[in-house]
Amino acid sequence: MRLAIIGAGAVGTSVAELAAEYGHTVTLFADSQSAVANPEGIDVDTAIEAIESGDQLGEMHTEDAVEEPYDVLVEATPNSRGDPTTVFNRLRTALEQGRHAVVSYKRVLAEQYKDIRALETENEGNILFGATVGGAVPVLSTIDGFGTNHITAVRGVLNGATNFILSRMMSEELDYEHILAEAEDLGVLETDRTFSVRGTDTALQCNIIASFLAKEDEPSFKGVQVEGIQNISSSAIELAREDGLTVRLIGEVANNEVRIGPRLISENAALAITGKRNIVQIDTEDSGQLNLSGTEVGGYGTATAIFSDIAHLY
Amino acid sequence: MRLAIIGAGAVGTSVAELAAEYGHTVTLFADSQSAVANPEGIDVDTAIEAIESGDQLGEMHTEDAVEEPYDVLVEATPNSRGDPTTVFNRLRTALEQGRHAVVSYKRVLAEQYKDIRALETENEGNILFGATVGGAVPVLSTIDGFGTNHITAVRGVLNGATNFILSRMMSEELDYEHILAEAEDLGVLETDRTFSVRGTDTALQCNIIASFLAKEDEPSFKGVQVEGIQNISSSAIELAREDGLTVRLIGEVANNEVRIGPRLISENAALAITGKRNIVQIDTEDSGQLNLSGTEVGGYGTATAIFSDIAHLY
Repeated sequence: MRLAIIGAGAVGTSVAELAAEYGHTVTLFADSQSAVANPEGIDVDTAIEAIESGDQLGEMHTEDAVEEPYDVLVEATPNSRGDPTTVFNRLRTALEQGRHAVVSYKRVLAEQYKDIRALETENEGNILFGATVGGAVPVLSTIDGFGTNHITAVRGVLNGATNFILSRMMSEELDYEHILAEAEDLGVLETDRTFSVRGTDTALQCNIIASFLAKEDEPSFKGVQVEGIQNISSSAIELAREDGLTVRLIGEVANNEVRIGPRLISENAALAITGKRNIVQIDTEDSGQLNLSGTEVGGYGTATAIFSDIAHLY
Repeated sequence: MRLAIIGAGAVGTSVAELAAEYGHTVTLFADSQSAVANPEGIDVDTAIEAIESGDQLGEMHTEDAVEEPYDVLVEATPNSRGDPTTVFNRLRTALEQGRHAVVSYKRVLAEQYKDIRALETENEGNILFGATVGGAVPVLSTIDGFGTNHITAVRGVLNGATNFILSRMMSEELDYEHILAEAEDLGVLETDRTFSVRGTDTALQCNIIASFLAKEDEPSFKGVQVEGIQNISSSAIELAREDGLTVRLIGEVANNEVRIGPRLISENAALAITGKRNIVQIDTEDSGQLNLSGTEVGGYGTATAIFSDIAHLY
């Protein structure tokens, strides 16, 4: 397929890097400032060099670029930046032009889920968004396999950076500010660190899961409670440890409600995953509980989720 | 869809029980002896009562029954019984009649994988077999999502009964024969216990994974080494425990080879899952390692995998 990639963060860059290996040609690559396009395929290496050295990608305006030839719009605008209205308009243009779209940008799905699904109904193309939840872990496609009406709850550790911080706080007995600085030095956090640690990223993913699970005639889910990890003290961590417990930032979707917050769990529980990993538990009506977990490997994990969605378009 | 269910073991019975809940009608239900059919839908409760009390299902011969009206053949012949040639012929008949088939019977896929795929090429219908690997855990569809050529290895604990025995041997310090008798009393083992404990079930699943991963122009995988758990002594278990290790029956597919045998692993490793559960690790080229695990809940887990395949047919 000919891909138009929007977004030059970790995910967009990874999609560009891996595209050829997955059988695709990048005909357009854009960030918020500018775009480069070539119907025969752009020079990906040169584009990535430009991004890394802070140069502009090309001479074209991003908003004009989507008129260029491509088959699938890859909407990989970085999650902690980006504007959902701009992204939504771009998706609408793509579908109205008879193209498909694959999305990793979470906010537009979390906030405009029904509008996005309506775009699909009104046009021939599809919008797939498996890459908005769980990175490389196939959460939405697994739920879809069981049938959304046979799922009773979904919960998990959905943000690897936050989990890195919490599991370091447990193992190193260092306080939050210290580990946060370390995580920033290691490049574990998104550019906007509050996006991870205040629970925003987890909340967006849970909202998408809740919308995906909701029956068509239902109003949206009842409400969202979000608490991040920024107020967890090292003394609270110490107390937990003395009882054989640990703290994880858990997002949960159950009974039409979404809750995100730090939770005390047993050190041996499946959810007590360590490091920059994620895990999702899916409670099913008829076949018990499934656990799916993966490792965050830069933008590559989400990029492979995008390729999986593209494969399902055809 | 109208389902023709062949096989009245745990899986076939579960499919019959749950069919209505998943939006399907059972128009035919057969075991190896006889069949009952009704184009409007059979009385499932009566059929299950007949099975439980050892009565015959109906007046029809099983081999004549597949001429009756249905959309999808559900080939759920019990794995530790059944004859792959009979099953293969039934699948061929179904496809030649323009129907689809969904299979949980493992041996026919493990031994005649290319012939099965050829049936699909020669006919309009499809044969889906996600239910042959991992029960409710979506192993093959997850591999398919990443693309088979982006997977470097697959390994795991694939037989819940064997895992129940091994984890009981570890925790209870009882010997193999004792725990085996307990597992039989609890109904954890298949009718033919050697099917689980000698590694046959794990080997069949690994063969199917290996065939699924193989490139079209490759000959079949190089060979299979199979060792079961029947020779593990309680002293070996004791020695492992002293070193913080445990024993699990691991099936692995890597570098075109299949190996099944007891392996020493750390008590804290993801593969050291306890009880009647299964876990599969998928090593990917670009997005690290995925872990998928589930609980075996009688035939229900495999039944939901069958419903997932049916949903993907249309």
